This record gives sequence, structure tokens and C-alpha cells, in this order.
Amino acid sequence: MIKVGIVGYGNLGRGVLLALENAADMELVGIFTRRDPKTLIPARKCAVYSVNDLEKFKGKIDVLILCGGSATDLPETTAGFLKDFNTVDTFDTHAKIPEYLAKLDRIGKENGTLGLISVGWDPGIFSLARIYFGAVLPNGNDYTFWGKGVSQGHSDALRRIDGVKKAIQYTIPKEEALESVRRGDNPTLTARDKHLRECFVVLEDGADKGKIEREIKEMPNYFKDYDTVVHFISEDEFDKNHNKLSHGGFVLRTGNTTEGNAHKLELSLKLDSNAEFTGSVEVAFARAVYRLYKDGKRGAVTVFDVPPKYLSEKPYDKLVGGLL
Amino acid sequence: MIKVGIVGYGNLGRGVLLALENAADMELVGIFTRRDPKTLIPARKCAVYSVNDLEKFKGKIDVLILCGGSATDLPETTAGFLKDFNTVDTFDTHAKIPEYLAKLDRIGKENGTLGLISVGWDPGIFSLARIYFGAVLPNGNDYTFWGKGVSQGHSDALRRIDGVKKAIQYTIPKEEALESVRRGDNPTLTARDKHLRECFVVLEDGADKGKIEREIKEMPNYFKDYDTVVHFISEDEFDKNHNKLSHGGFVLRTGNTTEGNAHKLELSLKLDSNAEFTGSVEVAFARAVYRLYKDGKRGAVTVFDVPPKYLSEKPYDKLVGGLL
Repeated sequence: MIKVGIVGYGNLGRGVLLALENAADMELVGIFTRRDPKTLIPARKCAVYSVNDLEKFKGKIDVLILCGGSATDLPETTAGFLKDFNTVDTFDTHAKIPEYLAKLDRIGKENGTLGLISVGWDPGIFSLARIYFGAVLPNGNDYTFWGKGVSQGHSDALRRIDGVKKAIQYTIPKEEALESVRRGDNPTLTARDKHLRECFVVLEDGADKGKIEREIKEMPNYFKDYDTVVHFISEDEFDKNHNKLSHGGFVLRTGNTTEGNAHKLELSLKLDSNAEFTGSVEVAFARAVYRLYKDGKRGAVTVFDVPPKYLSEKPYDKLVGGLL
Repeated sequence: MIKVGIVGYGNLGRGVLLALENAADMELVGIFTRRDPKTLIPARKCAVYSVNDLEKFKGKIDVLILCGGSATDLPETTAGFLKDFNTVDTFDTHAKIPEYLAKLDRIGKENGTLGLISVGWDPGIFSLARIYFGAVLPNGNDYTFWGKGVSQGHSDALRRIDGVKKAIQYTIPKEEALESVRRGDNPTLTARDKHLRECFVVLEDGADKGKIEREIKEMPNYFKDYDTVVHFISEDEFDKNHNKLSHGGFVLRTGNTTEGNAHKLELSLKLDSNAEFTGSVEVAFARAVYRLYKDGKRGAVTVFDVPPKYLSEKPYDKLVGGLL
């Protein structure tokens, strides 16, 4: 049995906990939280410890699945965990991945541990589609579309605005852009061409609607470069219609082998629960971390380093006989 | 530079030859043919040798890409090539893969070589979709659909019938079955439910149309278990409208993480030229064979053993910085 620990119990930690029920080869040692463990009621019966007690579990956990938020928690904390444990994380600040990987690689090698970074569906499953598609169709163009789905980061950005009580943001791929890519037009697409951002906002009493709408639409990085639609709705409507964290998206590659012969490769995901699916992905890659570590691998790696067979609970002969 | 040889020059060998133009890190040593080399005019200028001279190239070729037909050539010949060279092949008789793999694994280990088997889009890219999808969504069902596209095996079967001059067979996925899978119905589908087989046949003068149509529709393994449509057409129409070897297909997996949350993962390919795309896939995996061999791997492996990074010409830091 592969012994795993869950660090952090938000939406993702809960998704990992539920996903472990589908992994007969894995055993949960416990959830490790920064909260008072007595106040945490997990979705399934299991041990809950303070993250401060983690050092007592050194040598008793094969892989830690880190479920903290990427923007703030992971850069600070992963390095610390990796000193004592193998880890898998969801670090998703694309621009900072190379630096993060280099740092963790050094720490893993110094401490004889292995960290697998940036696991989820993007980065993660979508990254795999991009690398495979690019390798087998080198002469072509890649397109990634997200949605329709809830962006946690953009929803957080809305909620940080003064006068906003509740808010959610849906990223919606523009159908005309998707169709143009599918036709093989090889279009050059700006951020605005690809996605629409739709916001549903509940205001605090007395908040200035016009000012908040302008503030949203002009927010750099998040909304300024997009067509953004803002709906102000009641709290009742918000609670009734905007409580699902569904998501999904598309990776497409179109290109040619010779001038007359074009090809289209497309991966699409449609997910009722972003957190539960991501949790399920973490569990499969935690299995791979354990196996790579057994092989002698140390340092830090990405999904690009993982032989696909290491993800599956099934023995190799069943994979070859049944899935090849 | 990775030095490769192409063994066999039919549609696939030609596809590999053309794909090598997109691989700046690879160098073609030559095409090796069973024909008289002087009679073979390749699509691009390159050396052509008799396959009987291959032994002179031992130590001078890093990977042989085997482009013989799976049903007949590969089981007989791959073992012989693997004694002296690393190989990549397209063996696609699914039921016989485990036995084929075991035999080649023994030969590779005895001779210090590495063979990568069953590379293409199915088996190959579709196998990868099946293993990744199953690993990240263990509680679900897989569906593979092929087409619309030309089945070489079924077209050959038609041409073996007495009185048939020319023939082609298109495999067509049934839209209602695809839609049912996409909706998450988890249907149980027979061969007949999933695919329609459409045949275009040119008869020899005086052939018995009714008899031939019955013979086609009742042919075991190939047509008997399917809804089969047969069109008899003129040779002119055949030559004008049925000269493309396009293909494609879908791998879908639907399933749940918890009872209320369903997910759908879908890969689709649409290929103008089956042979050219397959050739391009072989070239990427030939690169991986070279790298796995450099790592010390010997015996026989499948696409499930290959870390994705080994397929790409791009250096690792570019993959991490650009595609992750």
C-alpha cells in the first residue's frame, strides 16, 4: 500500500480525499491542517492532524499531496515539505514554473526526496496533450481554450473589490474562435478573441454599481484584455444558481505533414467538479511519484517525466493486454 | 544527430520519409527494401539499399523504423531486425500484442537492443488516451470509435473477392452512439451499434453483383457483425472520388468522482492522410527509442513506458517553460 498524506483541506483537499476511495493500492495516513484539527470535519472518516505534527510522520508517509493554493501557499511551503517527504503539488503560475522547478530540484536532490510539480488538468492533463500533439505533429499550431467554467482566481479578484459581497466569474470560450481553429484556419488569436469573461456579482448595501463595473472591466491582468460582461444579481439568485464549480476546456492542434494533408488533434474535458477531478488527477500522479522514487529518482520532475504506466493501478500486463 | 533507417517503402514508409523532414535532430541513413533498390523511386532524394545489406549497417543506425504490414511481415521479421538494431514498429493485431511483446523483450535483452512496439494512432496515441483517462478517472467507461476513414484491412478483404476489380471500405462511427456516450449514458454498445461499414466496389466485367454483395455482407470478422452498405460504382467514379486515405476517430471516457459529479474526457483525431500522420508518430517515437536506449533500457517496451519528454525535439527547459 502506498501511504499518502493530504496537506490542506479546502475544495482540492476534499477532492483528493474522495478520489482515494477509488485507489485500492493507496492508504490515507491523515489530513494535515493549519487549523485546529478538532474543528475540521472531513467528508470521509479519517485522521486529522496539525500540520505542525508532520515531522513526526517522516518515514511513515510515501507521498504528501499538497492542496494549498498556488498563488500564495505553494512557493513558500513546498520546499519545506520536500525536505522530509516526497510531494505532488498543483503549482499553476505558468510564468514561474521554471524557477520553482529548479529550486525544488535542488532541495529534493539535497534531501533524497522527489517532488512532482504542477499536476492537475492545466497544467497537467492539458500539458500532456500539448507535448504529445506537438511531438507527433511538429509542423502546426496549438490552441488552448478554457471553459465554460468557474475561474477561482478571477472570482477571488472580484471579491477583493470594495462593495462586493459575493461574486463568481465564468470563463467562456468563444465559439467562433474554436470553430476557426477546428477548420484549420490557423488563426492568430488574442486573449480577447478566445475567451469571454462573465461575472455575477452581489453588492453590499449602498455600493456604487457603476463604479464597481468600471473597476472590474479595467482591472489589469484579470479583465482589461477581455470582453467582460458583468451581471449584478440578488444574493438569493446567486446562492441558487451559482454554487457549482464546473469547468472544462479544449486543447487543439492543427497542422500539416505535407502541403496537401492537414490534421486536427483535439482533447476536451467537461467536468462537473473541477476540485474533484483535479483531486483524482493528483492521486494518480501521487502513485507515479512513489514509483519514480522507488526507481531511484530524486529532485523535482513534471508530468513530462512520468511514464504513463506509472499512473495506473493496473499491472503492466493488464495495461498491455487491455488498453494498448 | 539520431541516425535512422526505414525498412519497407509502402504508404507508411513514405509517410516516415516525409515526416523526417520535420525532425532537425534526425538523419536518414537510407531506405531498406525487399525490392530491387534500383526500381524504387522515393518521394525525397535519399539512399536506397536492399534489405539484405542491412547487416553492413550494424552500429551505424540508431533506430530502424519498421514499415512492413502488421498482419504478415512484422511477427516474422521484427525479431530478426531486433537482434542487430533498435526498432520501432506498428504491430496492431491487438490480441497478439502480449505474446509479441514477450518474445521481443527476450530477444532485445539477449542482444542488448531495444524495441518499441505497436506505435501509431491506434495502437499508439489512442492507447495513451485510454491509459491516461482511465488513471485519472478510474470509476468510468471507455469508448473508442474509428472513422470516418478508410480501413486498409477491410478494403483488402473486399479486393480478395472474385469479380472485384477495385474496392475501398470506410468505417463510419454511428452518430447516435457517439452522442449517447457524450451524454454520459454509459451505454453497452455492440460492434454493430458503434460503426457502420460503407463499401465502394468496382466489378470486373460479367461479375455477379448480387452474389458479391451477399459474400461481402456475410464475411465473418470483417462485415458480418456490422451494418454494411455496398455501393457498386464505375471505375471512373472510383478513381475520382476515392483516392484519399483519410481517417480519424475518438476515444471517450465518462465517469464519476462522486455520485453527483460526472466528467467527460474526449480525444479526437481528424487526419487527411492516415499514412503520413502515422509516419510522423513513428518518427517521434523513434526519437524516444534512441533516448531510452541511451538511458540503458534494453528489451521491448510500449508507448506506456515512454516519458512524454522523450518524444519532443525541444529541450526540456523549453518544454517546461512553453508547454507545461
